[in-house]
Amino acid sequence: MALIVQKYGGSSVADAEAIKRVAQRIVAQKKAGYDVVVVVSAMGDTTDELLDLAEQVTPLPPGREMDMLLTAGERMSMALVAMAIGNLGYEARSFTGSQAGVITTALHGNAKIIDVTPGRIQEALDDGAICIVAGFQGVAEDSKDITTLGRGGSDTTAVALAAALNADACEIYSDVDGIFTADPRIVPSARRIPTISYEEMLELAACGSKILHLRCVEYARRYGIPLHVRSSFSQKPGTWVVSEVEETEGMEQPIISGVAHDRSEAKITVVGVPDRVGEAAALFTSLAEAEINIDMIVQNVSAVATNRTDISFTLPATHGQTALNALKKLQDQVGFESIRYDDQVGKVSLVGAGMRSYPGVTARFFDAIANAGVNIEMISTSEIRISVIVEEGQVDAAVAAAHTEFQLDSDQVEAVVYGGTGR
Amino acid sequence: MALIVQKYGGSSVADAEAIKRVAQRIVAQKKAGYDVVVVVSAMGDTTDELLDLAEQVTPLPPGREMDMLLTAGERMSMALVAMAIGNLGYEARSFTGSQAGVITTALHGNAKIIDVTPGRIQEALDDGAICIVAGFQGVAEDSKDITTLGRGGSDTTAVALAAALNADACEIYSDVDGIFTADPRIVPSARRIPTISYEEMLELAACGSKILHLRCVEYARRYGIPLHVRSSFSQKPGTWVVSEVEETEGMEQPIISGVAHDRSEAKITVVGVPDRVGEAAALFTSLAEAEINIDMIVQNVSAVATNRTDISFTLPATHGQTALNALKKLQDQVGFESIRYDDQVGKVSLVGAGMRSYPGVTARFFDAIANAGVNIEMISTSEIRISVIVEEGQVDAAVAAAHTEFQLDSDQVEAVVYGGTGR
Repeated sequence: MALIVQKYGGSSVADAEAIKRVAQRIVAQKKAGYDVVVVVSAMGDTTDELLDLAEQVTPLPPGREMDMLLTAGERMSMALVAMAIGNLGYEARSFTGSQAGVITTALHGNAKIIDVTPGRIQEALDDGAICIVAGFQGVAEDSKDITTLGRGGSDTTAVALAAALNADACEIYSDVDGIFTADPRIVPSARRIPTISYEEMLELAACGSKILHLRCVEYARRYGIPLHVRSSFSQKPGTWVVSEVEETEGMEQPIISGVAHDRSEAKITVVGVPDRVGEAAALFTSLAEAEINIDMIVQNVSAVATNRTDISFTLPATHGQTALNALKKLQDQVGFESIRYDDQVGKVSLVGAGMRSYPGVTARFFDAIANAGVNIEMISTSEIRISVIVEEGQVDAAVAAAHTEFQLDSDQVEAVVYGGTGR
Repeated sequence: MALIVQKYGGSSVADAEAIKRVAQRIVAQKKAGYDVVVVVSAMGDTTDELLDLAEQVTPLPPGREMDMLLTAGERMSMALVAMAIGNLGYEARSFTGSQAGVITTALHGNAKIIDVTPGRIQEALDDGAICIVAGFQGVAEDSKDITTLGRGGSDTTAVALAAALNADACEIYSDVDGIFTADPRIVPSARRIPTISYEEMLELAACGSKILHLRCVEYARRYGIPLHVRSSFSQKPGTWVVSEVEETEGMEQPIISGVAHDRSEAKITVVGVPDRVGEAAALFTSLAEAEINIDMIVQNVSAVATNRTDISFTLPATHGQTALNALKKLQDQVGFESIRYDDQVGKVSLVGAGMRSYPGVTARFFDAIANAGVNIEMISTSEIRISVIVEEGQVDAAVAAAHTEFQLDSDQVEAVVYGGTGR
């Protein structure tokens, strides 16, 4: 029998009414002849409430206990979803991450899935039951302590279970209708993308699209699990994320799939670095040791007179202060002149597998941005992506200009609620 | 090293402030040189809130899922208590019932503890950590499903862990100062009982005293675990429940330990039962098959003229309707005349190991009640207890009269809050 894994985010199970609606959707899938495994997040605000309680008790909660506390959230939602399904006359059994066989590393708050051993899930499916599994959580391999997976954890749980159970597809439900060609809050004429490749989705996720988390897409690509990203509030089809995008109805794939943006980065420029072998390496080794993820790097051509250069890079703004501290410690050793910090920047990225075979995309992108009066501060490219750093206040203009230039605008404006899925 | 097991009820961990206060008490015990294992209930109203959520989703929640839902409650409180202890500079690790090795039967909502295998607890204690264990919950032996223990479950968890870990004592904390000679809300001059035997405590618990649950006391008696029942809101000593009450300071033990009462029962009278062998048995077999617990039974002397008799018995009022239905089905077969039902009754019980060696206690008890103008409807006795059924409105008068007659009144009235502990 075909097996579908469904994942419902916090807004889809926010209260009793939402849970009953989700239960009907699950039962409909079962009635249609599928085996169904459902992964749920915690209800709406539960996680925030638990975090708030922890904060009232201690400023520095130990990771082990924080995970124990937070995993109560999915425990509640999964039991309630199972009850709601029972009320519709179908058998549902709920399982914690540990019971579902989600084995992880021991890094509390940000554990990685090592293995999934879904023996109990398979048994329940064989009994004809619908399985409800707690997302976002697992059990550490050696200590047997309860862990949580960090951001995007519930999506990753769903994909990992889909892979372990050899599922036919994994549906990711949230409060948005799918992946759009741009954030509809910025570009009201943005269109839903019907199908997109894992590679493009990875680039979009890495460049600020918050609908799917990078880890989840990587996992799906590795195991070839088709993802269907859709809304639990409507019956509309969403976006399929698959390995190969078929060309349908004689139409070629568009050159560009979408325009992503990200306001969470900051830019650091190290001014007047002596242009000697190993100096840049020293800077980035020090940042790596402080566990800071660097995104884009640009090194200017060295000024002949001084034999010094400027090195600019971007990083998550939340790591800004840590990075500045790490760099300042190196100032005497490396002998650079000064550091400039700017968190009023944004990244705008053009993503599309089609750009491989179309030269001139970069030029058109830069032209469109320039015509919109936006100055480009940094550039970085991959085979299927071009990203630029611009002033934060000009992000919207740049996104809109690129969206129009590559004919992504829809004739009709779809009304969507576009929100991030936390876990 | 000496080991103490402490149990804190829901009111003791009702909010962040209460949790921090409890953490200080736990750390004080640790500082005093003890190994400490703590069993916690769910915070204040959590259980009610979860029950309410379940009710919004379905009128008939499956037991398995209800247990999954409710066990989220202790998961939260135990993690928060562990965090609060960490904040005081001591290491605490929390464990679910399953992790603590509480193995139970599979009867969801009312599972019985079969075995306790506290390997992980012992390991954590050996590491010098304080252990926080979720009360009220366990894991079913065969299915590995999560179970809850029903009423008094957290106390029972504490005593079972104390037995398995060979603890020196088990402290049961709630919002009352101990066991009293009567309910202080009815008898303001009631005194705290410093020490009481398991046998007497069992009788008090069976007769309506809500401070300790029968199962917990039975468990403590079986394994000889001294219980200390006390308040988490004060440093006062509470009541010790032990196997032998030592006679101290040349004082003999009082004849009577306390007066208990219970308003939760109902009385059923089956009128005109043919006085033939097996008719009463047929009635009670039918009630047993409906899983109704009968408390007291009185069969009147048969009337010579009709050769018929009346049979009265008491039972929990919550089972009243079920019992009436079961009996009505037998009316034609047995041939009794009618059924009378009365839930406006109360039971008043005098408990004391001393009554074994003092004749005349029964007479004094009945006299005192009669002098208070209270009519006795039924009587039942054990070796260390006398119980009477009276009209519900006269319970207070009967309790007060008995309390005074056996010189249990204190010179000074203690101010106590006297509340039941749900789990």
